[in-house]
Order: sequence, then C-alpha cells, then structure tokens
Amino acid sequence: MKKYRILVTNDDGIDAPGIRKLIEIAKDYGNVTVVAPDSPRSGQGHAITMNIPLRLEELYRQNGHAEYKCSGTPVDCVKLAEKAILKGNADLVLSGINHGSNASINIIYSGTLAAVLEAAIEGVPAIGFSLLNWANDANFDNGEQFVRQIIENVLEEGLPQHVGLNVNIPDIPENEIKGIKVCRQAKAYWDEEFDLRQDPHKRDYYWLTGVFKNLDEHNDTDEWALKHGYVSVVPVQADFTAHNSLHFLKKWESNAK
Amino acid sequence: MKKYRILVTNDDGIDAPGIRKLIEIAKDYGNVTVVAPDSPRSGQGHAITMNIPLRLEELYRQNGHAEYKCSGTPVDCVKLAEKAILKGNADLVLSGINHGSNASINIIYSGTLAAVLEAAIEGVPAIGFSLLNWANDANFDNGEQFVRQIIENVLEEGLPQHVGLNVNIPDIPENEIKGIKVCRQAKAYWDEEFDLRQDPHKRDYYWLTGVFKNLDEHNDTDEWALKHGYVSVVPVQADFTAHNSLHFLKKWESNAK
Repeated sequence: MKKYRILVTNDDGIDAPGIRKLIEIAKDYGNVTVVAPDSPRSGQGHAITMNIPLRLEELYRQNGHAEYKCSGTPVDCVKLAEKAILKGNADLVLSGINHGSNASINIIYSGTLAAVLEAAIEGVPAIGFSLLNWANDANFDNGEQFVRQIIENVLEEGLPQHVGLNVNIPDIPENEIKGIKVCRQAKAYWDEEFDLRQDPHKRDYYWLTGVFKNLDEHNDTDEWALKHGYVSVVPVQADFTAHNSLHFLKKWESNAK
Repeated sequence: MKKYRILVTNDDGIDAPGIRKLIEIAKDYGNVTVVAPDSPRSGQGHAITMNIPLRLEELYRQNGHAEYKCSGTPVDCVKLAEKAILKGNADLVLSGINHGSNASINIIYSGTLAAVLEAAIEGVPAIGFSLLNWANDANFDNGEQFVRQIIENVLEEGLPQHVGLNVNIPDIPENEIKGIKVCRQAKAYWDEEFDLRQDPHKRDYYWLTGVFKNLDEHNDTDEWALKHGYVSVVPVQADFTAHNSLHFLKKWESNAK
C-alpha cells in the first residue's frame, strides 16, 4: 500500500483530544506531519498572521511521523507546513476532529474549516472533521468508522480540484448513526446577544454570545442530515460568487467608452 | 429623500484615509454610524472574538452621525453595531474603502469583506469597496463617482437576500476608468514564501510573504475587469457548497438501515 504524506491540523490546538484521535487514525494511512496551533484558535476564520513573526517548534520526529506546534492560526499552519516542511508534497490535509459543529454557517467562523479551504485553494485534497460535542471529554470513537471510510474514499478516488470536504458527525453512539449523506450547507445565522458588563474600573465591556438560527429545513442540507442521525458531507470551495445573482446586477454595468 | 441608516466599517482601522473618504460619501445618503477597529485588522478574515471581552468607545455623536472604535475584528464591529447600537435597524452596511485589492481569492483573507459577508448573513444589504493601492496616501477620489453610483443603485433597487457586493476599483485616474463590470471571482491563490530569520536569542522565526497567482484569465472575472480598467462588482454570499461537486460525491452515501 502506498504511504501517503498526510498533514494534520486543527483549531482547538495541538493538545486537544480531537486532534490526538485524528492523528491516531491518520497514521494508519501514511506518514503524518502534524502542524497545529500551540493554543486554541476557535473562531479565527481565515485569519492569517502578517504583522508579527511566526514561530514553529518541532516536538517530535520518529518513523516518518513528526509534530510541530505553531504560534499562528490554522491557515498559517497549513501555509507553513506546505512551504517550510512538506515543500509542496502533501497528498492530503486532515483538519480536526473539531470539538463542536462546523455545519452550515459555522464554517465561516471556523479555523478548522479555514485550514481545509486553504488546502483546497492550493490544490491539495482536504477534509475537515467535526463532532457535535463541545466537551473536552467528548467520545471521539463515535463516528470513527465513517472518518476512516471518508479518508479511504478520498485517497482512492481523489476530490474535484480546489474542493474540500466539510464532514460533521452527530454526537450519538456509532451503532445508531444511520450512514453518510452528501449535502449542501444549510442557510442559517447566529443571532448574537452581547452581554454588557462593567469591569472593576467601571469601564463597560461586552461578551459575545448567541443562538444558532436555521433558516433552511430542506432535506438536502447538512443540518437536516445531522438532525436525522447521519454523518453530513458537504463539498466546499472558496468561491464566494453568488452566481445566481449575476443576472440581477448586469443592468448596473456601464461603459464610459 | 429618505434618510437611510448606514453602518460604516473597515479592517484598516478607524483612522485610515480610506474609511474617512467612505464616511464623507455615506453622509450624503443618510445618518451614518461608524463602528470600526481601533487598529489595523487586515488579514483577519472572518475571525470573531470569543475568549476576551470586547470594548466599544464612543468618539463622536452629532446631527445623527456617530463614531465608535472597537477593540475587536471587523466581524465583531458589524455584530456589535447591529445588536448594541443600531438594534437591527441598519438599512445598509458599507465597508472600506480598503487600502489594496480584495478581488479574487483576497476576499477570504479580508476583514473588510468579512464585514460585508457578515451583514449579508444577517440579511442586511452590504457593499465592500477596495482601491488597488496599498499606500496610506492613495488617492481615494479616484473612483468616487462609481462608489456613489453603486451605493445609489443598492439603495434604490436593493440586493438579492443574503447577497453583498465586492467592489474593487483600479488605481487609475477617474476619467480613465472604463465603467462598471459585473463579474465572478477569479480562481487564484497566493504562492507563499516564508522568510526564515533568527532573533537576537538565536531562535528561528518566520515572516509570511507571497506572490499572487491568477489561474483564471477569462473575461468574466474580476481580475480581468480590473486589468482592463473597469470597476469590478462581484455579488458575494457565504455559501461554501461546491454545488457542481455534489453529484461526484453522491456514490459515497451510505444507509445503515
């Protein structure tokens, strides 16, 4: 069997139980290089580090496997790993397993999925895995057979160019998971509330909180699949064009000459 | 004429010349509330602040106009403004004018465009403006007539729901701009180079640098429009689904029961 070169990253940080599980699985498929943030970086979206230097520290290297912690964001990790360590030779990027859902609109805030999108932009097949349980002691054995199956599918068949996968796993015992559904991202948003407080110096500050609002109950969405006990698989890409709206805007075009 | 309630933000910070120009323009169309980062936040993508408190400081309030600086990211600014200040009553969100291009793949790294996408997610019409000149003393009068025309079009006709606009302006004298082109986002990526250095304590660190690589020379793209002297207008939305790839993946579906 071919030994694939696999990069593993996440946004919960290199010590999170979710990435430890993903590393353990990935080692069955090839030589694993881990480059992950040195601390939790949830909610970092596609942020990159431009104004301060980046640090990269090798923690471990043995039998083809290596681990590095990085001072930057998940996107920094992918960029640094590809350029400074793997030199463009990654066969697959795996990100996660995230503690908590990255389905629907959560993808845009997620560092875990930003790493997947960054790899896709660079033309490297990539999969992000998330378990619908925020707890540090979540059971990442739930869904393992589906994680393995999806990795095997991608290694065997590849992915369309510049497309990655956003895989979410319902937090139920593995034998109750109904299977895999290929779906689109549900339309949703976070209805924020800001908790206004005063610090000991009588200065106001806010904490961000919010409630997830699903606007889209159709049965071809990731939210539907997860609610009904399926692992959701959404093909994702970094094209923000609202293609269906191009026609509406065409009348605003102008030509000075 | 109706007095619109307009929120103005950016990612270069509240003191950047680009946002000062946009505020000046916006005041001709309604009551302007500015909520912008207290320092430059370029490259922050869709990052949000979850683990530290957010500060909001009122700088100015007179004749229906108000300005606040915020300790968070551009997305935090939009969320805080909508919830804590405008209470869901914004008619339009304007972001920019950004110092430098946000065309093509730059959108995913841009805080300026993240603010636009956040407003679109929340159902508020939004436009991001960027001038293709990074300099602090760039001439933001170039393209002003097009900025005004696009704002007027959106105020009069609205935008499709959950869709914003990514407007980029070529850095040429206004009388040489050929007009407005409605386009799609060009496929491109940044080919990074990491500049490896040693600090005075002999520890390695990296600076992120890179070169923009356009993979897509078609004449229906924003890169083409800008190269040929047009203002590019791309309708954008936060749907990452690679709709054309759903079919390829369908065979990976499974049903345990």
